[in-house]
Amino acid sequence: MAPVPIRTVGIIGTGVIGASWAALFLAKGLKVIVTDPAPGAEVKLRKYLQSHCSEVPNSHVSPEACLENLTFVNELDALLGKVDLIQENGPERLDFKRKLFAHLDENTPEHVLIASSSSGLPSSEFVTDCKKNPARILIGHPFNPPHLVPLVEVVPHPATGSEYVDAACQFYKSLDKEPVLVKQETPGFIANRLQAAVCAEAYSLISRGVVSAEDLDKTMTSGLGLRWALTGPIMTNTLGGGANFSHFMDHLGPALQGWLGDMEKHKFDFSPQQVDSVKDKVNDWVSQLDLKEIEANRDEALGKFVEDQQH
Amino acid sequence: MAPVPIRTVGIIGTGVIGASWAALFLAKGLKVIVTDPAPGAEVKLRKYLQSHCSEVPNSHVSPEACLENLTFVNELDALLGKVDLIQENGPERLDFKRKLFAHLDENTPEHVLIASSSSGLPSSEFVTDCKKNPARILIGHPFNPPHLVPLVEVVPHPATGSEYVDAACQFYKSLDKEPVLVKQETPGFIANRLQAAVCAEAYSLISRGVVSAEDLDKTMTSGLGLRWALTGPIMTNTLGGGANFSHFMDHLGPALQGWLGDMEKHKFDFSPQQVDSVKDKVNDWVSQLDLKEIEANRDEALGKFVEDQQH
Repeated sequence: MAPVPIRTVGIIGTGVIGASWAALFLAKGLKVIVTDPAPGAEVKLRKYLQSHCSEVPNSHVSPEACLENLTFVNELDALLGKVDLIQENGPERLDFKRKLFAHLDENTPEHVLIASSSSGLPSSEFVTDCKKNPARILIGHPFNPPHLVPLVEVVPHPATGSEYVDAACQFYKSLDKEPVLVKQETPGFIANRLQAAVCAEAYSLISRGVVSAEDLDKTMTSGLGLRWALTGPIMTNTLGGGANFSHFMDHLGPALQGWLGDMEKHKFDFSPQQVDSVKDKVNDWVSQLDLKEIEANRDEALGKFVEDQQH
Repeated sequence: MAPVPIRTVGIIGTGVIGASWAALFLAKGLKVIVTDPAPGAEVKLRKYLQSHCSEVPNSHVSPEACLENLTFVNELDALLGKVDLIQENGPERLDFKRKLFAHLDENTPEHVLIASSSSGLPSSEFVTDCKKNPARILIGHPFNPPHLVPLVEVVPHPATGSEYVDAACQFYKSLDKEPVLVKQETPGFIANRLQAAVCAEAYSLISRGVVSAEDLDKTMTSGLGLRWALTGPIMTNTLGGGANFSHFMDHLGPALQGWLGDMEKHKFDFSPQQVDSVKDKVNDWVSQLDLKEIEANRDEALGKFVEDQQH
């Protein structure tokens, strides 16, 4: 029951994430069949694709050709027999996903890989009613916006077949994505945990008045994040230890522990008072900014950076 | 007692950080007077500068002109009367720094700003024996390598004069650096705290076998870090909340708290067992890699990225 080459992708749900996936798949030359029950979904999606397909790094398909490869169907079942892979982007509600996945499993040929973009629910919780082949179900969690950011977290549930894990990784790689394998179902997977660690300390520093929100962000964009875009935390440690991770841990581990101890003492507690204090300080700063322009500039720089890295 | 324009910088200590500062100052057209008591320090520094001055983003000074602006003196006191600012990079030992700063303060004209690159010691601890003008002493902590990474953390002690804080920020900005103001002396300042938060969770995930060291790093370089190089954690939250930070906090705060709670349960404890487990897993990966090549590629990409951003 080896997965077949993937030429046609089914997309369920065309909100922010589903629409961005569609732009990626189309810009990489795949055929896409989409469904979304929301009123006006098709018109909205076509408009989105017209302006975003061309942003996909290293795309060689014209926006017109992209749109020719798109089929919008009103009925979910109209796509289930025709696709080689499904990328699901429905609401993050357990009862909803349980029903949806039982239906998908029952009505889709057995070999078809079914990936959920879920960031919150582990798939073991929503494959419970799948009787046919739950081994082909896993999470393929993208990072916003999926058509620009290469990361995809691939998270199997304990009964996902390794051939489907391999096939999913291979599929995402074929689109110039960077799949990472999350070997155990873990709340927040990898990226959201690392992000939460940084945010909690950032909120503490800002609410305590140690640093302004603007300067906190600058610490990341002109230092830490800049370096982490090129070498991750482990490689950065290794290079910082004179090309030796063990040396880094032995010599800087105690300093790290000291900082972590102080952070523990001043831990952000998410109380209404602390949350309001961060909101006030952040809003004082961001209310002066043109956020639409910042987002557009970021996305342009993201696409350019990814394109450069892939060359 | 307003600080004067800075044309000549004194550098004390030419290890990794001091040498990189020298490359930056020279490539920006400043005169630099350097001292370091280590045997062979001058030869080593000149060799470093020959290959690294030209890497400084948006430098318009030839490597030859850079070296013409360098003076190496064997005696510390020979530079103290001739410089407009001192950037100190001595050993991170409190007794050493206390004596050094008392001597610098006593023997340097009163208006001269004295910045320490210290990453570990707050300056309030080592200005204790300064009698003349401790108000002109502060920390200017760079991020490795200083000639490429724009971030400088400016950390005054409680008695640092605000005019010196302003002058330090202005000076670093004039070199295309990005100073951030740390308003209270805090262990690890900002960047090392945020980095420690990420590393602790990374070590936990790797030692528990949730993700490989390689994939942990990939999560950063192809997702989180990539985005953070362009928008910091607070702006990323704001854009993720539909251009509304309060909306983000209200809707995603509870999810963050849930992840943080799970991270707390699996907290890396720096026990020898856990440390060894991370070392083994990291070394299995990095021992296969050409680390010199990785570092050179990173530095080249860093310089290019910073140059692009500054245009």
